[in-house]
Amino acid sequence: MWQRYNQFKERGLKLDMSRGKPEKAQLDLSVPMLRIDDGWIDDDFISEDGIDVRNYGDPTGIPEAKRLFSELLGVPAGQIIVGGNSSINMIHDTLTRALLCGPMEGDTPWAKLPRVKFICPVPGYDWHFHMCETLGIEMIPVELEPGGPDMDKVEQLVKDPAVKGLICVPMYSNASGITFSDETVMRLASMKTSAPDFRIVWDNAYCVHHLYENDRDSLMNIYDACVAGGNPDRVLMFTSTSKVTFAGGGVAAMGASPANIARHGALLTCQLVCYDKLNQLRHVRFLPDKAAVEAHMAKHAEIMRPKFEFILDVFEKELSGTGTWSQPKGGYFICYYAPEGCARRIVELCRDAGVTLTPAGSPYPHGIDPKDSTIRIAPTYPPFSELRLVIELFPVAVKIAVAEKYGN
Amino acid sequence: MWQRYNQFKERGLKLDMSRGKPEKAQLDLSVPMLRIDDGWIDDDFISEDGIDVRNYGDPTGIPEAKRLFSELLGVPAGQIIVGGNSSINMIHDTLTRALLCGPMEGDTPWAKLPRVKFICPVPGYDWHFHMCETLGIEMIPVELEPGGPDMDKVEQLVKDPAVKGLICVPMYSNASGITFSDETVMRLASMKTSAPDFRIVWDNAYCVHHLYENDRDSLMNIYDACVAGGNPDRVLMFTSTSKVTFAGGGVAAMGASPANIARHGALLTCQLVCYDKLNQLRHVRFLPDKAAVEAHMAKHAEIMRPKFEFILDVFEKELSGTGTWSQPKGGYFICYYAPEGCARRIVELCRDAGVTLTPAGSPYPHGIDPKDSTIRIAPTYPPFSELRLVIELFPVAVKIAVAEKYGN
Repeated sequence: MWQRYNQFKERGLKLDMSRGKPEKAQLDLSVPMLRIDDGWIDDDFISEDGIDVRNYGDPTGIPEAKRLFSELLGVPAGQIIVGGNSSINMIHDTLTRALLCGPMEGDTPWAKLPRVKFICPVPGYDWHFHMCETLGIEMIPVELEPGGPDMDKVEQLVKDPAVKGLICVPMYSNASGITFSDETVMRLASMKTSAPDFRIVWDNAYCVHHLYENDRDSLMNIYDACVAGGNPDRVLMFTSTSKVTFAGGGVAAMGASPANIARHGALLTCQLVCYDKLNQLRHVRFLPDKAAVEAHMAKHAEIMRPKFEFILDVFEKELSGTGTWSQPKGGYFICYYAPEGCARRIVELCRDAGVTLTPAGSPYPHGIDPKDSTIRIAPTYPPFSELRLVIELFPVAVKIAVAEKYGN
Repeated sequence: MWQRYNQFKERGLKLDMSRGKPEKAQLDLSVPMLRIDDGWIDDDFISEDGIDVRNYGDPTGIPEAKRLFSELLGVPAGQIIVGGNSSINMIHDTLTRALLCGPMEGDTPWAKLPRVKFICPVPGYDWHFHMCETLGIEMIPVELEPGGPDMDKVEQLVKDPAVKGLICVPMYSNASGITFSDETVMRLASMKTSAPDFRIVWDNAYCVHHLYENDRDSLMNIYDACVAGGNPDRVLMFTSTSKVTFAGGGVAAMGASPANIARHGALLTCQLVCYDKLNQLRHVRFLPDKAAVEAHMAKHAEIMRPKFEFILDVFEKELSGTGTWSQPKGGYFICYYAPEGCARRIVELCRDAGVTLTPAGSPYPHGIDPKDSTIRIAPTYPPFSELRLVIELFPVAVKIAVAEKYGN
C-alpha cells in the first residue's frame, strides 16, 4: 500500500478538494449575464417599480428579484429581502441584529443574556460554526440521521430557555448530503421551545442543486409548516446564487414571516442605503424565474455529476467494508466516514501526497470530531480530467491509516 | 410673499432634494464600465494574484482594487480591505464587531459595557446617527466650526472612559461642507483619551469630490498623524465609489493600521466568504488609479457645479441678511442656517409646494436640532433644467417662515 502511496507522491500531484467551489467550466456558464449587449439591459436600468438600479433606493431589493427568490424559497415576494452577494453575510447580519437589538422589537438583545446557545446538527457547515463561535454563541452538536437531526434530542434541548436557535443546511446538507424529512420539518416547526424568540436559521444553499433529473430529494416548505404550527416567526430562510451564477458575484436572499421581514427591513436601514441592485437586475434578466434557474442548474449538473459518480465508483471498488460514505443526490459534498480515529491521518496522508481535503473535524463545532471519522470531500473544483487521475489516492490513504490504527 | 408662494404651489411642482443622490447624467458616465466588450475583461477574469474573480477567494479584496483605494485613502495597499457596495455597511460592521467582539483581541466587547458614547460633530450625517442610535451607542453632539469640531470640547469629552469614539465626514462634510483643518486632524490624532480602545470613524466619502479644478479643500492624512501621535490604531478610514461610479453598485473600502486590518480581516472570515470581486475588477479596469478617478470626477463636477452655483446665486440675491449658508467647494450638500426656530416651517412650506428637502433636524442625533435652524440642501438629484425653475421657492418659503416667527 505504501508503494502505491509513494507512486502518487512521486507524481507531484496538486489538487484542491477542500472547499465547495465551482470549477471554471461552471463559472463560464454565466458569463453571458455580464454582457450588457446580450440584452440584460434593455430598458435603461429601470426596475419594475421605476427605480434606476444604478442609484440609491429599494433597500430590500428590486421587485423582480424578490419574485425570483420568492419562487426559490417558497414565500410570497413581500416576505423576501434580496441582499448582496453572500447569504452567509445575511445570516451573520440577522444574528448580530438578534444579539444587539433583539430578534423582534421589545425582545432582550441576546448579547445582554448570560448565555446564548444554538443547536448545531453535525456534521454541518464549518462556516456556521465559525460564525457562532466568533459571535459568542455556544454550540450544542446533535447528530444528523438520514432524515435530519435527532429530533428527540432537539425537542429535549429546546426546553432550555438559553437555547435560542438551530442553524442548519436542510437540503443536500453540507457536509453529509442528507435532506430533512417531512417529519423532521414538521417537528421543528411545531415543537414547543422555552425561548419565545427561538429562531431556525434555514440555510437552503442547495435548494436547486440537484445532480439528477429524475432522482431528487425534496424538502417540505418549513415556513408553511411553521405557520401551521402556530410559529410563523420561527424560521429565517436563506439562499443565494453563489453556486448558480458566480461564487464571487452572486445574489443572496432571505425569506421569513412578514413580522421578521419588517423587523430586519427596518434594522437594515441603519446598515446600508441599498444593496447592489445592478447585480440583482443582471441576475433576473439572465434568470427570470425558477424554470430558468432549473434549466441553468441542469448544465451545472452535467459538469458535476461525472465527478460524484466517479468518486462513488472508486469508493465502491476500493473501500467496500472500510468505512461508509454518503450518496448525495445534490449539493456539493460527499462525506466519507472512516473507521474511528482515522480521519485526521487520512487527510494528512492525502495532503502529503498533494491532495488538499477539508481539515478533519471541520464539520463539527470548534473543529472537534469526537470520533475523528468524518471527512468532507468537495469534488467540484478540480476539472474531471484532473480529479480522475488522483482520486484513487484517497482509498490508498484510507487503507494505510486504518492499517496503522487497527493493524491488518 | 404668499402670492409668490401660491404661484409656485399652483404650478404643481415636484422636486426631490432630500438625499445626496447623483442625477441620471452622472450615472451615465460610468455605463462603459458595465460593457464587457469595451475591454474591462481582457484576461479571463483573473486578478493580479491569480484568483478567478468569479469564484471564492480574496476575502479582503483583489490586489489591484486595494492599490486603487490605497491611493484614495493614503495608506499602503496592505492596510486596505476592499468590500461590497456600501461604506456605510463597512462602518456598521466595524461597530458591530467592536460591540460583540471588542475592537481588538482581548478588548472588552463594547456591548458588555454599561454605556458606550460617541462624539458626533453636528451638523452631521443622519445615517451615522441612525446607526449609532440603533446599535445603542449614546451620541454627544459637538458643534462643527469652520475647521472642524470644537476641539477644546472634544478633548474634554474624551476624558470620560465611556466615550469610545467619534464619527464624522471630515472632508466636504455632510451636511455643512467644511473640511477639517490640519490643526483639527493633529489634535484628533494626538489627544489623550481615557478609553484605550477609542476609535475615530473617518467616513471620507467625498475625498475626490471637488467642484472646482483649482479651488479645492485638502485634508491632512489622519493615519500618518495618528502614527506620529503614537496612536496608530485610533482611526478607521472609509470611502466608496458610490458617487464616483454607481450609488447602487459601487465598491467600498476601509483603510487602517496593520493591527486593525488584521483584526477586521480575521473577523471578516466569520461573516462572508468573499465580497463581490467581479465588481471590484470591473471598477479597477475602468478606473485603474487615482488619476483616472480624478479625470472621471471632473466630469461629475461639470454636471454638479452649475447647480451649486445657481443656488448660491439665488441665496445671495434673495436671502442676504436672512440666515447664513455654506459655500462648499465639494461634496454633495449646501447647508442653509435659518434664523432660529424656522427650519421645520421652511421645510414644511417647501414640501407643501412640491419640493422635498431633507427633514429639518436630520443632521442632528435623534433628529433634534436644538436651534431648529439647519437645513441640508441636496442639489444633485434633479437635473439643472428642473432645479432652476423651482429653487426660488426656497427663499420665498424662508421669508414666509421668518415673517411668521419674527414679524416683519
